[in-house]
Amino acid sequence: MRVLVPFGARDPKTRLGAVLDEQERHSFAEAMLADVLRALADHDPVVLADAPVDVDAPVTVDERPLTEAVNAELASGVPTAVMMADLPLVGRETVERLIAPDADVVMAPGLGGGTNALVVRDETFRVDYHGASVRDHRRAARAEGLSLATVDSFQLAADIDEPDDLVEVLLHGDGAAATWLRAHGGRVATTDGRAQFTWGDTEE
Amino acid sequence: MRVLVPFGARDPKTRLGAVLDEQERHSFAEAMLADVLRALADHDPVVLADAPVDVDAPVTVDERPLTEAVNAELASGVPTAVMMADLPLVGRETVERLIAPDADVVMAPGLGGGTNALVVRDETFRVDYHGASVRDHRRAARAEGLSLATVDSFQLAADIDEPDDLVEVLLHGDGAAATWLRAHGGRVATTDGRAQFTWGDTEE
Repeated sequence: MRVLVPFGARDPKTRLGAVLDEQERHSFAEAMLADVLRALADHDPVVLADAPVDVDAPVTVDERPLTEAVNAELASGVPTAVMMADLPLVGRETVERLIAPDADVVMAPGLGGGTNALVVRDETFRVDYHGASVRDHRRAARAEGLSLATVDSFQLAADIDEPDDLVEVLLHGDGAAATWLRAHGGRVATTDGRAQFTWGDTEE
Repeated sequence: MRVLVPFGARDPKTRLGAVLDEQERHSFAEAMLADVLRALADHDPVVLADAPVDVDAPVTVDERPLTEAVNAELASGVPTAVMMADLPLVGRETVERLIAPDADVVMAPGLGGGTNALVVRDETFRVDYHGASVRDHRRAARAEGLSLATVDSFQLAADIDEPDDLVEVLLHGDGAAATWLRAHGGRVATTDGRAQFTWGDTEE
């Protein structure tokens, strides 16, 4: 199966701008991408980027928005997995769980309704990553009579988009993104509720 | 295996107070509890509550804080699963995945480092739900030389604690909690980023 990893190389992770400057956003996004590519190493992943990026995998550059770029690839009709590049917790076992179901469409939801990972084995199915895409993709698959499977995975749900997400990298990560974040002073702050991300010397 | 579902019956879900009044918090918490009990139906769950609660399962009332109440149960040495009551997305397959690993301790992390589900097969292991408990439990298991497994599950990670979490119930739930929330006007609002919970007539 072909495996694509879309990557926004031009202006990555803008919603992390409150805690990372532009250079840091690039470095951290590339560290997360490296973690995803490592988890996919048995599957020869191809990075689908909106600008050239120096990474240890083949890169297809397509300057169009995410939805259009992915749909252009799906139009070939080749069975394809699409996994987002901001999933630094993902491991090889989870990749196998994603690919295992024998369904026309397999989805792993992200927090807030994103479609963080997707397998498409039907040549007519197209993506639309706007809005609550996992719900829209589910409805589209059902409307077309396609078989649908959902993969229940925290590793695939935990996309790192917002400052509050960074704590998950520190709590569970053991790859390049976690190393980067710790080296730059990222720490876990415990509270009465959920643990929070912070910078500095807070006891971990 | 004994299965416990801790439930705060006295003043449930205080962090949802911004969007639910006291009566609604009770009703919604009981709806979530019903969903969890339904997922556990093959395992004869017992509710471990801090006050009497009218629910379709045996209830053990222990007025002590969560950590103490659970540890009092673990002291018996009986293999025990502990699953939180605010996991309305959990399904039967995921329960089986939690119970399957043959390890002394099995954990399913929650968002922000909680321990949303736990299996303990070692009579010396004790819980401490304060702080980033999944990290502390992991360290404690390793320090004691216990075998440890982690279950990768979005359904078990998505505890419904804060208003932002409610959108997950609407996006993925099909049980009592989702029905309650929809009947009370809960809706999905789509934005450029993650979908958000809202009240009212927003198109779903």
